[in-house]
Amino acid sequence: MSGEQELGITESKEHSPGEWYAEVVQKAGLADYAPMGGFIVTKPRGYAVWERIQNHLDGWFKDTGVQNSYFPMFIPESFLEREKDIVEGFDPEVAWVTHGGHDELEERLAVRPTSESIIAPFMADWTRSHRDLPLRLNQWCSVVRWEATETKPFFRTKEFLWQEGHTAHADEEGAWDETMTRLEQYKRLYEEVMAMPVMEGRKPPHDKFPGAHTTTTVEALMPDGKSVQGGTSHYLGTSFAEAFDITYADENEEDNVAHTTSWGLSWRAMGALIMTHSDDQGLVLPPAVAPTQVVIVPIWQEDTKDEVQEYAADLAVDIEDSGVRVELDDRDHYNPGFKYNEHELNGVPLRIEVGPHEVEDDEATLVHRPDGESEVVDREDIGDTVSDHLDTVHAKLYASAEETLDGEIREGESREEILGTIGQHGGYVKCGWCGDEDCEDPIKDAIAAEIVMVPLDRDEEPVHDDCAICGEDAEETAYFAKSY
Amino acid sequence: MSGEQELGITESKEHSPGEWYAEVVQKAGLADYAPMGGFIVTKPRGYAVWERIQNHLDGWFKDTGVQNSYFPMFIPESFLEREKDIVEGFDPEVAWVTHGGHDELEERLAVRPTSESIIAPFMADWTRSHRDLPLRLNQWCSVVRWEATETKPFFRTKEFLWQEGHTAHADEEGAWDETMTRLEQYKRLYEEVMAMPVMEGRKPPHDKFPGAHTTTTVEALMPDGKSVQGGTSHYLGTSFAEAFDITYADENEEDNVAHTTSWGLSWRAMGALIMTHSDDQGLVLPPAVAPTQVVIVPIWQEDTKDEVQEYAADLAVDIEDSGVRVELDDRDHYNPGFKYNEHELNGVPLRIEVGPHEVEDDEATLVHRPDGESEVVDREDIGDTVSDHLDTVHAKLYASAEETLDGEIREGESREEILGTIGQHGGYVKCGWCGDEDCEDPIKDAIAAEIVMVPLDRDEEPVHDDCAICGEDAEETAYFAKSY
Repeated sequence: MSGEQELGITESKEHSPGEWYAEVVQKAGLADYAPMGGFIVTKPRGYAVWERIQNHLDGWFKDTGVQNSYFPMFIPESFLEREKDIVEGFDPEVAWVTHGGHDELEERLAVRPTSESIIAPFMADWTRSHRDLPLRLNQWCSVVRWEATETKPFFRTKEFLWQEGHTAHADEEGAWDETMTRLEQYKRLYEEVMAMPVMEGRKPPHDKFPGAHTTTTVEALMPDGKSVQGGTSHYLGTSFAEAFDITYADENEEDNVAHTTSWGLSWRAMGALIMTHSDDQGLVLPPAVAPTQVVIVPIWQEDTKDEVQEYAADLAVDIEDSGVRVELDDRDHYNPGFKYNEHELNGVPLRIEVGPHEVEDDEATLVHRPDGESEVVDREDIGDTVSDHLDTVHAKLYASAEETLDGEIREGESREEILGTIGQHGGYVKCGWCGDEDCEDPIKDAIAAEIVMVPLDRDEEPVHDDCAICGEDAEETAYFAKSY
Repeated sequence: MSGEQELGITESKEHSPGEWYAEVVQKAGLADYAPMGGFIVTKPRGYAVWERIQNHLDGWFKDTGVQNSYFPMFIPESFLEREKDIVEGFDPEVAWVTHGGHDELEERLAVRPTSESIIAPFMADWTRSHRDLPLRLNQWCSVVRWEATETKPFFRTKEFLWQEGHTAHADEEGAWDETMTRLEQYKRLYEEVMAMPVMEGRKPPHDKFPGAHTTTTVEALMPDGKSVQGGTSHYLGTSFAEAFDITYADENEEDNVAHTTSWGLSWRAMGALIMTHSDDQGLVLPPAVAPTQVVIVPIWQEDTKDEVQEYAADLAVDIEDSGVRVELDDRDHYNPGFKYNEHELNGVPLRIEVGPHEVEDDEATLVHRPDGESEVVDREDIGDTVSDHLDTVHAKLYASAEETLDGEIREGESREEILGTIGQHGGYVKCGWCGDEDCEDPIKDAIAAEIVMVPLDRDEEPVHDDCAICGEDAEETAYFAKSY
């Protein structure tokens, strides 16, 4: 059968995870490489997954007071430079627009790498009275960061899609609540939508967002043992508000400086999703983000074709009526085996096989992706049954990822132990840490692992009394890991 | 009451439409001007309207086989230049990225002005067999065109938001059907969602999209008598497919060139919407795009406050339960009159007033925006009643715009008549036309009006036998108008 060879994933997730990932992304129709290094084309199946991630998150944002808006994609150089007041040594690696038409511009324009410096002046303008607060803005857009690295679709690209939220509040408490609300929504997205457990934490002070008071993060463990920063939510304190004059008159008409936050999640979430669940047969998608949740494959000989196809079509109608995204694959020119391979490659969570036996017994055979577990079920109540099985598929994916994560958090009491454990197993090593950035260096230098997070709760007792590196008193627990 | 003065629109739609439009856009919270000329900030209310336009159109696209995707925002100069093969004198006025970080790029990158030249090579790659067709791609994105004109939010901006659809088909018939399907969806958007009548037509050959076989358009009449190109759908023939090698093997394994289309609608639709319906009190929105469809304003004295507020809150719950976007304005620090003005300014289609009388009689007073017509209705079945009134508001807006349009299509039999009629009334003048671009010139030179469309149906008899300009035989009917 022509095309059949193209369907196979030839690389191994276990032995060549980088090549395997690139192959899954391309063969499952998620993305292609653009002609310019660092850029990708997001193909329909990839974009459909991103849209579902967007829709979930956007709905939660709106339910909690966020308003979408859209700011210019260009930022004048002088605006970007205002951030130098806040951040020492700020030197953005951005794409510069220098010409419009045939003319050189008087001032260079940066293609936004993030939009604080263009949004903050408007937040200042729109915030006059305490009644204008909280002000919660978000935009879904693309941003560009001119970093010279190898292209890895959704993980490392010069242009990427994301959402960036920017909010202003009357006081620290309001801004902290906001910071945590968004972090919890990111966690919920990973767990409930993407079937991935994540760990919440803070970035160590030396790795905060420039100018932030606190950067919080959700970290996800990849199968190759590296950690991915899955979304960040920053409490910015008053530093941005002071630099951009975001002030308000309180109930006594007195001027106050607002407290601000920002928070963002990019299509890297989609990359982490693909990498976590997929396998050597191709893409695996949790039902909540799968463009097609169920595919029905009819199996027939010439003499049973009509009855099987009719039965399958009826089944599709009932399943669709129950709100499930179902596709009937009635293509004549491919055999069932080819179809199975194709839908497995493309990450359809549930396959329904119907042949003459199913028709006769008023049944259907359900097959789970990725473990191939199958069950023969009654035709009656097929909509509910299918929904239950989709829930089961989600639960299986989550349980598998959780088991991996649980086994990959280890303790370390010395530099050697940290190096040895991460070097051998990957994953996280948690240890006592004095809080000094210098104690990260020997680990970084030796195996390129770093402190990816510390616990959210500042009062949590450190896992050990002493810093695993320098032996001084430990201030908190550090989680070391290699990271994307 | 502080702030009250800011609410008023001071300009007149009739006497100073340009200033009035700018004032409505800013005061109703739709957009602000960015610091760089030609760019705007789309504020939450404006963006919420755009999202509703997007949602309607996107749903219809998906129902008819379109898949969303995302292509890079940058296009290498050499790719743009391939379009020179198709279009003579192609010289895009674009923003050029010349530097990434501290380095000059080897090849300049254009910020996309439209994406044919970056999408077409991928369409070529993805189109191998007749089974891959039709291929229907769409992306929602921002584009940049470096035109030096005065900024008019949503109408004239260097960066604008839009959708661009790009499709490939096996033959002319398929591509033509596609072209017309999208044009009809644009028409439906204007009529059913935005309450605006539009005229469908073709652009005259000298005003087609560069390289297109045929450009079709929906034209909307603005209150100042000018026509707006509200969306265009292009049948591109095989010119792009030939230039970019979009070919496919047919059922006999023979190579064929595909026929392609492209079609786009931008936030200019939103500008046309604002300009059409709004008035000297501010924004007027059809219910389908209004972020808030109904606002409830309780009217009370201290001794009736509790019962009125409770009644209003119950009402809000019932209305929300019926699927209507309702807001209860229970702010204590503004009086009802201030609230009326504010919600009128912001374009809420239906206001519900409830005071002690309404509570006593189990009623509610409904007031329509924009005509102020009010009706006292029963509390029972309030959800259905409100939905009916929202339909009525839509119908009123449509009827009013339709009446205007009907009165603004006139006939002309000579150059003088065209000049005189458009000069005096604006609107459209339809006349016989020989088909020669030269016959447009005298009208263009004299009053900057042009042929905005000719009938869709190529076989339609011209309105008059002779060309109104040169007196030669008329080939078709031309619609002259000033345009945005």
